[in-house]
Amino acid sequence: MTASTTHPPADTGTDDVPAYCRGLARNARAASRRLAGASGQKRDAALRAIANAILGRAADLQAANAKDLDAAPSLGLSDAMIDRLRLTDDRLKSMADGVRQIADQPDPVGKVLEGRVLPNGIRLVKRRVPLGVVLFIYESRPNVTADAAALCLKSGNAIILRGGKEALHSNRAIAECIAAALDTADLPRHAVQLVGTTDRAAVGELLVCENDIDVCIPRGGESLIRAVVEQSRIPVIKHYTGNCHVYIDQHADPDMAVKIAVNAKTQRTGVCNAAETMLFHAGCIDNGILQRVVEALLHAGVELRADQRTRDAFPGKHNKLTEATGDDYATEFLDMVCAVKVVDHVSDAAEHINRYGSRHTDAIVSDHLHAVQQFMQAVDTANVMINCSTRFSDGQQYGLGAEIGISTDKLHARGPMGAEDLTTTQWVAHGNGQTRG
Amino acid sequence: MTASTTHPPADTGTDDVPAYCRGLARNARAASRRLAGASGQKRDAALRAIANAILGRAADLQAANAKDLDAAPSLGLSDAMIDRLRLTDDRLKSMADGVRQIADQPDPVGKVLEGRVLPNGIRLVKRRVPLGVVLFIYESRPNVTADAAALCLKSGNAIILRGGKEALHSNRAIAECIAAALDTADLPRHAVQLVGTTDRAAVGELLVCENDIDVCIPRGGESLIRAVVEQSRIPVIKHYTGNCHVYIDQHADPDMAVKIAVNAKTQRTGVCNAAETMLFHAGCIDNGILQRVVEALLHAGVELRADQRTRDAFPGKHNKLTEATGDDYATEFLDMVCAVKVVDHVSDAAEHINRYGSRHTDAIVSDHLHAVQQFMQAVDTANVMINCSTRFSDGQQYGLGAEIGISTDKLHARGPMGAEDLTTTQWVAHGNGQTRG
Repeated sequence: MTASTTHPPADTGTDDVPAYCRGLARNARAASRRLAGASGQKRDAALRAIANAILGRAADLQAANAKDLDAAPSLGLSDAMIDRLRLTDDRLKSMADGVRQIADQPDPVGKVLEGRVLPNGIRLVKRRVPLGVVLFIYESRPNVTADAAALCLKSGNAIILRGGKEALHSNRAIAECIAAALDTADLPRHAVQLVGTTDRAAVGELLVCENDIDVCIPRGGESLIRAVVEQSRIPVIKHYTGNCHVYIDQHADPDMAVKIAVNAKTQRTGVCNAAETMLFHAGCIDNGILQRVVEALLHAGVELRADQRTRDAFPGKHNKLTEATGDDYATEFLDMVCAVKVVDHVSDAAEHINRYGSRHTDAIVSDHLHAVQQFMQAVDTANVMINCSTRFSDGQQYGLGAEIGISTDKLHARGPMGAEDLTTTQWVAHGNGQTRG
Repeated sequence: MTASTTHPPADTGTDDVPAYCRGLARNARAASRRLAGASGQKRDAALRAIANAILGRAADLQAANAKDLDAAPSLGLSDAMIDRLRLTDDRLKSMADGVRQIADQPDPVGKVLEGRVLPNGIRLVKRRVPLGVVLFIYESRPNVTADAAALCLKSGNAIILRGGKEALHSNRAIAECIAAALDTADLPRHAVQLVGTTDRAAVGELLVCENDIDVCIPRGGESLIRAVVEQSRIPVIKHYTGNCHVYIDQHADPDMAVKIAVNAKTQRTGVCNAAETMLFHAGCIDNGILQRVVEALLHAGVELRADQRTRDAFPGKHNKLTEATGDDYATEFLDMVCAVKVVDHVSDAAEHINRYGSRHTDAIVSDHLHAVQQFMQAVDTANVMINCSTRFSDGQQYGLGAEIGISTDKLHARGPMGAEDLTTTQWVAHGNGQTRG
């Protein structure tokens, strides 16, 4: 296996997976050095060429996608998963639009974060520079391939993409669009490499290439992420589950409480920023907000797992409000199921969230300034939503163009990760002969 | 062992190290929640009270220090190490000044990094918030205890301090100053806790308290750091060795080249930002810069390990210029020893640095703008020094007040770490009922 063979046939596999993976990593490192010197204009030109290629090769992309769709039932994919895999005309257009939006963002590379002239005359600057090489391991829809590659090019990084086998043909076709665009923009093809073997050993081999890969971003189920953390010698930015909460204060607008609770829980259940638990201030029993929200959730078809105080508010409906266990509060249902609990104070809500939550996204619905301030201060989470749905916690919604994921780590990046989160910093000290006394 | 006993007698040890360590971590977490809500004014007041306590209790501190100095020979400390341990009047004053300088810095907590109004009317803000709880493991002079505690209080974090046993009495006396100051400022004592047992098992026990500790910062020898990384379930920001380079271009000012090379190598050899290798452009042989710098280093008493081209420039001095091996280029000598190599181009210098360096601090001496730009772009390092000594790569020199260490990681923090690097970010989305369609 030579270094230039970056896309060996997937079905035949490679002869020597370790050597193939080391080659990918080495090629990525070399490409990253060239990318770091490429102007933002050139990187943006590559992004626009990718968008054009996606639209120009729609037929090829859909033909490749058809192969994945044909194979999907044999891989055990549900109808919903198969639907998500499908590259419709609209989805191709939206994929291209996403890449163009990233091109339109300001260049994060070279951005000066701070600077000063030191008393000795040294001019000091702290500036953003690319991380270098990103290893992205994911189990998602094919559009994530384009988003991730675009965010890495935008930030001057080379990327190695390891997608799920259910999208292999689609991902390969997208990678071909990207390769052609890199040629057009005179940037190295190895800036974006798709792992060309479905051999599971490849992930383990890549995770020990710590000299050539700077960061690994796994995005997918918890078991995937844990396995990556376990094996990796490369720093990992983790994208764990979203066990998100909506806390409804006694001073909430009742209509708003209903609207936000139903939207956060039901608008799309299988995503990390959907709500999994509703917390209510005890005053919401007396003023009827709890009853209205619970009825609305039941009406929307949500199965509720509730504490005793909530159940007591519905004496005739114990069959619809099953008893919640501690496990329910710790679960990311990703389904039309919701845990419910009554608390006596916003600080109790914060304590519950800090105990059971995953530090992803947590909302408060309240018109009371002091309660909002207490919630913001006490809840340890990446995204605090005040009087709006948890579903807005998203790179595109936030105006980052797209996201490579939503970090549940506190170090380096927290919440939706855009291009700027794929940079590191460098201090540059510019002197004229200064020495230290 | 109860949770409130945070400073058990060091010499007797604790009965139950795991329970003691879990107690430290839990107490720190609780204190961090209170700190996160404390105003910057209050945190700065605590810092000023620490500085006052250090000066006011100078006699107590020096008495405690005397115990460490007495025990030092039996711990095998060299005279130089014993000297570094000594708390003279000047050093106490400088310790207090350092803490005051940190108090004078702007508050990093709550700083807004970006923000916008989204098309749907949601007001979005990304702001700095404390990391939470920092575990700091170090083998350094006692002033680091005060610096680290001050930086953590400044950034709203609780800290658990695990210093070296050679400074145990000094560190405990400093911790008592800090505890008194926290009382004065009405902040929780558990905001700064010194591990009160010298039992080595304590480090391992703390490193698995991942729910209550947010980050571990080890600062010391490479073996300490590797051991921490190996055992830790908590994210680690690594502070590895400084294998720093000075690259002298053919277009360097000869006097400046001599001055910077000698300063970077000899002003203080045992520190991470001292230079370990001098690289010369081949043109420096013809114009005599190499000869001048090499003579100056020899004159300063530096032992040189040189490549063949350097040795050939000194035909009569092969006994003073021993032959360099690959190992020499990879070594952080921390001593009056220096590796030397001639390269043909700035890109070869960058390649050498990227291969052998530790991405800490690397300098170029050149009056040629293009060479400087190439160096800045091609060298993958935390600190690029242009026409000044590597020795300036330091939090205090950079105007950060102090540093908890110099990160050689690329993620989260890179280079000298000040108070701002001890924060994470949080997105706050402020709506008025928005739901996602």
